[in-house]
Amino acid sequence: MATVQAVARAMEILRGLAGAPRGLGVTEVAARLGVAKPTAHALLRTLADGGLVNQDHNTGKYRLGPALLELGNAYLETHELRARSLILADSLASRANEAVWVAVPSGDHVLVVHHVFRPEGAVQILEVGAVLPWHACALGKVMVAYLPEADRVRLLAGALPVLTGSTVTDTARLRAELEDANRNGYAVEDGEAAIGDAGIAAPVFDSDGVVGAIGVVGPVERVLAPERRETHAVLVRETAKLLSRDLGGGRPMLRRVVA
Amino acid sequence: MATVQAVARAMEILRGLAGAPRGLGVTEVAARLGVAKPTAHALLRTLADGGLVNQDHNTGKYRLGPALLELGNAYLETHELRARSLILADSLASRANEAVWVAVPSGDHVLVVHHVFRPEGAVQILEVGAVLPWHACALGKVMVAYLPEADRVRLLAGALPVLTGSTVTDTARLRAELEDANRNGYAVEDGEAAIGDAGIAAPVFDSDGVVGAIGVVGPVERVLAPERRETHAVLVRETAKLLSRDLGGGRPMLRRVVA
Repeated sequence: MATVQAVARAMEILRGLAGAPRGLGVTEVAARLGVAKPTAHALLRTLADGGLVNQDHNTGKYRLGPALLELGNAYLETHELRARSLILADSLASRANEAVWVAVPSGDHVLVVHHVFRPEGAVQILEVGAVLPWHACALGKVMVAYLPEADRVRLLAGALPVLTGSTVTDTARLRAELEDANRNGYAVEDGEAAIGDAGIAAPVFDSDGVVGAIGVVGPVERVLAPERRETHAVLVRETAKLLSRDLGGGRPMLRRVVA
Repeated sequence: MATVQAVARAMEILRGLAGAPRGLGVTEVAARLGVAKPTAHALLRTLADGGLVNQDHNTGKYRLGPALLELGNAYLETHELRARSLILADSLASRANEAVWVAVPSGDHVLVVHHVFRPEGAVQILEVGAVLPWHACALGKVMVAYLPEADRVRLLAGALPVLTGSTVTDTARLRAELEDANRNGYAVEDGEAAIGDAGIAAPVFDSDGVVGAIGVVGPVERVLAPERRETHAVLVRETAKLLSRDLGGGRPMLRRVVA
């Protein structure tokens, strides 16, 4: 299938600007795309007309624009898993007395689409829109455990960045963890994305397969405390089952795909 | 300046999908754009490659994709006004004991880029990413009061939708409100966007002019109570001045632009 080169370049500009907090000038954008400056300029002006980028009056540099936040919000509002998870996530948070995240796969990352604060918590930062490498969080590991084998092989062969001293990057060990997750119906993370943070997550299915995951997140000392760990795992797995039922996913526990 | 037609069409697809919670099929997209089906298909496939749209396996329809949420989040993270407003907005919320919004202009709307919950509040919904018509909220009115006259004339001549029985759509009355806002350094909204909700907001400047606004929002009975209204206005205006100072905006109160 032919792709539209100008649109592919426009998306590359947006990705570039997302990684450039101080913005990029026309010359920098042209160099990154490997195109002539007038071409880069025309792309940037078109994106600016739609509010997807903004030009800074003082520096002349371009940054991401407000229309992206509006579109991101529209994505959340039209997201079926998120909409259906609201009540179940609230209930999980109050039963586990921990924060709850709902995430979906996005390339080799997971994207947090819903976040319920811990009921009795102090200051908490809303993590909707946060992205995490799949191998460094329970949400990602449990989704990948239930993906078709070809996707899993591709992800295991991809980049596995080290985020903490506990991040697992050995593919044999990761594969063993995925097999465990597949057998148990949940995955565990222990300080692998951020020091001191842990998570337990279970997969959510629709009739086509895994579409996301839901889990509790919080300090290692609470989430993985010996007397709570199993209770959390059971709560998370039951919530994920109810959510899958809502989405037409049937009996997820029968979907064993790891050999 | 020439625009890139394919990119303009891609943005039109995204806007169309934002207003179509159930998604759109290739035929619908082609009809909306006035293009042949293969053209629409190539645009959709390219957007899908970048994660900006997703195709539903069951219905074949396209919806907005997760990359938009990531880009929207990157927009927020690289947003200077938002970054600089975090501490001042917290402080305003605790001094006023009300929720605080920070917003930026986006076409004929304002876009909420930061939201601090009311300190003693019950259940509150995070409104980051929400858009409001400029004429129906204090944030929008106060920004427009300090825009160059040509922009103000254009906005006053544009669509002024009615949201409640109190929404002001008479341009002479709106203009008088803008003059008041310009004279006082703040604007007031009284149930004009949603019944029972009120707001008081002041403009934020950088060296080029108005870049956004900050204000308190809450029930009419609290925010506009006779004994609190003036205190709120003073708190909001002082916070906006400090924020403008941070952004290189100098003395905003000298920037009177309404004739």
